[in-house]
Amino acid sequence: MIIGVLGPEGSYSEKAAKLWIRDKGFKTVSLRYFEDIEDAFTAAAKGKADFSVIPVENSIEGSVGISLDLLLRLKTVICGEIVIRIEHSLLSKGGRENIKVILSHPQALAQCRHFLKENFPDAEIRSTGSTSHAALLAGEFEEMAAISAPEAAKKYGLKILLSNIQDRKENHTRFLVIRPGNFHENARVPENCPHEKTDPDSEGASSFKTSLIVYIAKDRPGSLYELLGAFAKRGINLTKIESRPSKRELGDYYFYIDFEGHIGDAVIKDALKDIKTNTDMLKVLGSYPRFEKN
Amino acid sequence: MIIGVLGPEGSYSEKAAKLWIRDKGFKTVSLRYFEDIEDAFTAAAKGKADFSVIPVENSIEGSVGISLDLLLRLKTVICGEIVIRIEHSLLSKGGRENIKVILSHPQALAQCRHFLKENFPDAEIRSTGSTSHAALLAGEFEEMAAISAPEAAKKYGLKILLSNIQDRKENHTRFLVIRPGNFHENARVPENCPHEKTDPDSEGASSFKTSLIVYIAKDRPGSLYELLGAFAKRGINLTKIESRPSKRELGDYYFYIDFEGHIGDAVIKDALKDIKTNTDMLKVLGSYPRFEKN
Repeated sequence: MIIGVLGPEGSYSEKAAKLWIRDKGFKTVSLRYFEDIEDAFTAAAKGKADFSVIPVENSIEGSVGISLDLLLRLKTVICGEIVIRIEHSLLSKGGRENIKVILSHPQALAQCRHFLKENFPDAEIRSTGSTSHAALLAGEFEEMAAISAPEAAKKYGLKILLSNIQDRKENHTRFLVIRPGNFHENARVPENCPHEKTDPDSEGASSFKTSLIVYIAKDRPGSLYELLGAFAKRGINLTKIESRPSKRELGDYYFYIDFEGHIGDAVIKDALKDIKTNTDMLKVLGSYPRFEKN
Repeated sequence: MIIGVLGPEGSYSEKAAKLWIRDKGFKTVSLRYFEDIEDAFTAAAKGKADFSVIPVENSIEGSVGISLDLLLRLKTVICGEIVIRIEHSLLSKGGRENIKVILSHPQALAQCRHFLKENFPDAEIRSTGSTSHAALLAGEFEEMAAISAPEAAKKYGLKILLSNIQDRKENHTRFLVIRPGNFHENARVPENCPHEKTDPDSEGASSFKTSLIVYIAKDRPGSLYELLGAFAKRGINLTKIESRPSKRELGDYYFYIDFEGHIGDAVIKDALKDIKTNTDMLKVLGSYPRFEKN
């Protein structure tokens, strides 16, 4: 089994993937490392990976735009979620006084915005495809430092100059596990994803989450309210609602909605029927076990 | 009068500010240029600028996170909006074949993600405080190129190598004009902002927009629906709803809501009374004339 992650070794995506593999008890897994989120995502969409693990949301900086865009555009099904704590370190070959260039992924740079502004106002900021790629590159010159997971230090021969440097101590990222395919009620699901066909209502609704994308044309302003009503009147708990530009014109959005419950539950099926009539496009992304901290 | 914008000269914020100044008919204005969005924002909050013009949302890449965060955190009032077309160019001193480094603001880099991946997969990507700062820096070496407004080419001695390079031809950014102060119904408003005290209902509701931030605690999942109901049942059109992490924990959000109407309108006042009882925090950001294309 192949699982695609953001590479090279030492990325937070790899950490999330390993946690998921352990949880599922998978034995024969090989990780495949990709240069950026889009490549890791595309690998799952095209079946070059059985699964890919993709960062989707961070508690400081919010959604990862490219991941949301690809959930809409590519054919994948969400079959899991993982949340991990993010503690960024500043890694370098040299000492703090030599640092002229700081490298990291744009999300990590944004999570450390104040740290950078206060401590390295004159450093050149380079954007990389992943935090681990930043660590790899920082191994080249003493004047470079990477914002990365502390685990990457050893791997790339760097020293940890500073720990836990993000702007808020509490920092978590949510990852999605995606697999090839389109969500469809009667579609065949891979052996590894039995939860997708779980017996309706057999487990507590709150142990599953379902994600979907809806499009509501700009000229139907009351429709979002009606759509949320389909959940509210059935007591279905929303866990997230997020807008993302349609890219057609300013002020035109897709809405990404996560809620508690499994697509096989009668109450969810019923809600979706309602929703279909109130939206101009509905894409179900998948039902998957809610992440539980161990 | 001092208006703060993202600098140096040649930024899109400057372009937006000049459009606003022309529209308002202001005569004695001096622009003050700031290094990043936070500095331009803080200048308005601290009264070092009478107004600042801040990018808040782009039609390809979505909201500007730092601007949303500062709207919550700092004491400013929104008193205008401007929408301008964004056409990014690739600017350099040298020829296309020499380019090794590409510089721009993270939002512009994200708006040109595919362009970069397809055309310059091996280029080093540097992140700058503004697109115009990227153009300024690109003047140093022939191997550097900036993604910037074409107008910056002449200013910084660069050639336009490629035009309109963002991933979608249609590309617009919305800017907010902010001023020092806290929104309060009975607060004194500056002479330049008479629209803030316009006669209620005297003009069509749709010629004004109002923006606010609400916080709904995570354990009250139905509250967002009730909140939207306060608008829907009064026929108030929402133009935007966006979530932003509270930064306290994953899954905990502030909601940013824009709608048609003026805070002085009876129907809006009435809706806000309703909303106050359904939310754990409400911050009114301001009422301002809706942007109209000339």
